[in-house]
Amino acid sequence: MIIVGELINSTRKAIAQAIEQKDKPYLQDLAKRQAESGAAFIDINTAASGNEIENMKWMVELVQEVTDVPLCIDSPSAAALQTGLQLCRQKALVNSITAEKERWEQVLPLVQEFKTGVIALCMEDGGMPESTDDRLRVAEKLVTGLTASGVAKTDIYLDPLIKPLGVNHKFGAEVLETTRLLRERYPEVHIISGLSNVSFGLPERRLINRAFMTMSVAMGMDAFILDPLDQVMMSFLAAARALAGYDEYCMDYIAGVRAGKVKA
Amino acid sequence: MIIVGELINSTRKAIAQAIEQKDKPYLQDLAKRQAESGAAFIDINTAASGNEIENMKWMVELVQEVTDVPLCIDSPSAAALQTGLQLCRQKALVNSITAEKERWEQVLPLVQEFKTGVIALCMEDGGMPESTDDRLRVAEKLVTGLTASGVAKTDIYLDPLIKPLGVNHKFGAEVLETTRLLRERYPEVHIISGLSNVSFGLPERRLINRAFMTMSVAMGMDAFILDPLDQVMMSFLAAARALAGYDEYCMDYIAGVRAGKVKA
Repeated sequence: MIIVGELINSTRKAIAQAIEQKDKPYLQDLAKRQAESGAAFIDINTAASGNEIENMKWMVELVQEVTDVPLCIDSPSAAALQTGLQLCRQKALVNSITAEKERWEQVLPLVQEFKTGVIALCMEDGGMPESTDDRLRVAEKLVTGLTASGVAKTDIYLDPLIKPLGVNHKFGAEVLETTRLLRERYPEVHIISGLSNVSFGLPERRLINRAFMTMSVAMGMDAFILDPLDQVMMSFLAAARALAGYDEYCMDYIAGVRAGKVKA
Repeated sequence: MIIVGELINSTRKAIAQAIEQKDKPYLQDLAKRQAESGAAFIDINTAASGNEIENMKWMVELVQEVTDVPLCIDSPSAAALQTGLQLCRQKALVNSITAEKERWEQVLPLVQEFKTGVIALCMEDGGMPESTDDRLRVAEKLVTGLTASGVAKTDIYLDPLIKPLGVNHKFGAEVLETTRLLRERYPEVHIISGLSNVSFGLPERRLINRAFMTMSVAMGMDAFILDPLDQVMMSFLAAARALAGYDEYCMDYIAGVRAGKVKA
């Protein structure tokens, strides 16, 4: 399982404030703790701060002072992505490309130039996908386009795009089924999801997020954008990974329990 | 989701002791609390007590004094099953039949006579199933045999038989895949599992059990033998049910949260 630590995101109030106050110790601590908790990438998003590009530069540098964990450079702005990627010392992940014409043309050259991994949202001009078939069709377009552009399958992170369950009670099942079919079609491609969208508008959101993650692992999802400091989430992830057959002799699960990180 | 409350089972120390001490209030309280927590059936097992048949009679009567929830009569002995079934006031569930010749011949007539539902373990002479294919083959034998004997598909509860993950790290994935294929083949048949076997020998067993339940719901399992007093388990069940698309407008989930029963 590949964890993208989601906490350094300027759409979160605490982060916007820390950026405004130039609270470097707070942000560095957050980076370190996510790294220690098993993040394979640390997401960096400064898009909701006043001066995105300047803040991206500052953030990438301060995070790299305290950890070698690769970064996930996250922005709607191609210029901000470029600024972040230029500073990355490790192979980064770009968050994100889509099959929308403009986004594709802006982001693909960055993925090629910096030889990054890339989160590819199953979305094209015309908006969010309407069905499993929609997602599969756009995924095919993305995988074909990216591999034809020299991106390795193992550098692609397909995001099937989960919509809020509170809006339509079939949205969960739709993405779970999509995940299963994507895993069948693309055994080498990663399948990733952010976890917060599914529970939008519902009470006890963390419960829905954790259950959705656990079910997604059963379907073949192997990457998650989540809060690695959520010990319950990480415990369920360890259990789900073992139950899905990825943990030989359950050694990682048992080691996690012994270290006090994995708990019922 | 159909919950069989598992707590009144004489293989549990507290129950064996309560039977020995004829502690009727304790057992009745356990029955009531399971019913209140959403059990659709209350399992009754007295097999590990000194006098199984006498105790079965006593137990079925005392439980029916306090609840109308149907019983799941659970025994390796056909005579004990018969004793329990004769006393049931509601349509019961029999735990269990298998494709083993002797067991089949002993239990089928009881299912027919008392018009019960029946848990059908994917097992035949020769022991536990060795693979997904094994399970599918035995399931076919069970469904064909039971329906030919007049049992409705909706009265069959197929149990794919989960083996301990600690013994082989592929055992979880094997049963999840079996469940998915059984659901595809038999849309009307229930698929059931006990949850404790999967975690046998591993630490933090409740975590593994809860994650396995959640993943199983994604695959189409719709019945579980579990402890309905485990609020975390029941919360994940409510979330998983909603995420799998069975909870229109997430109304049951939201009602559970409002009642304080469903919590992150």
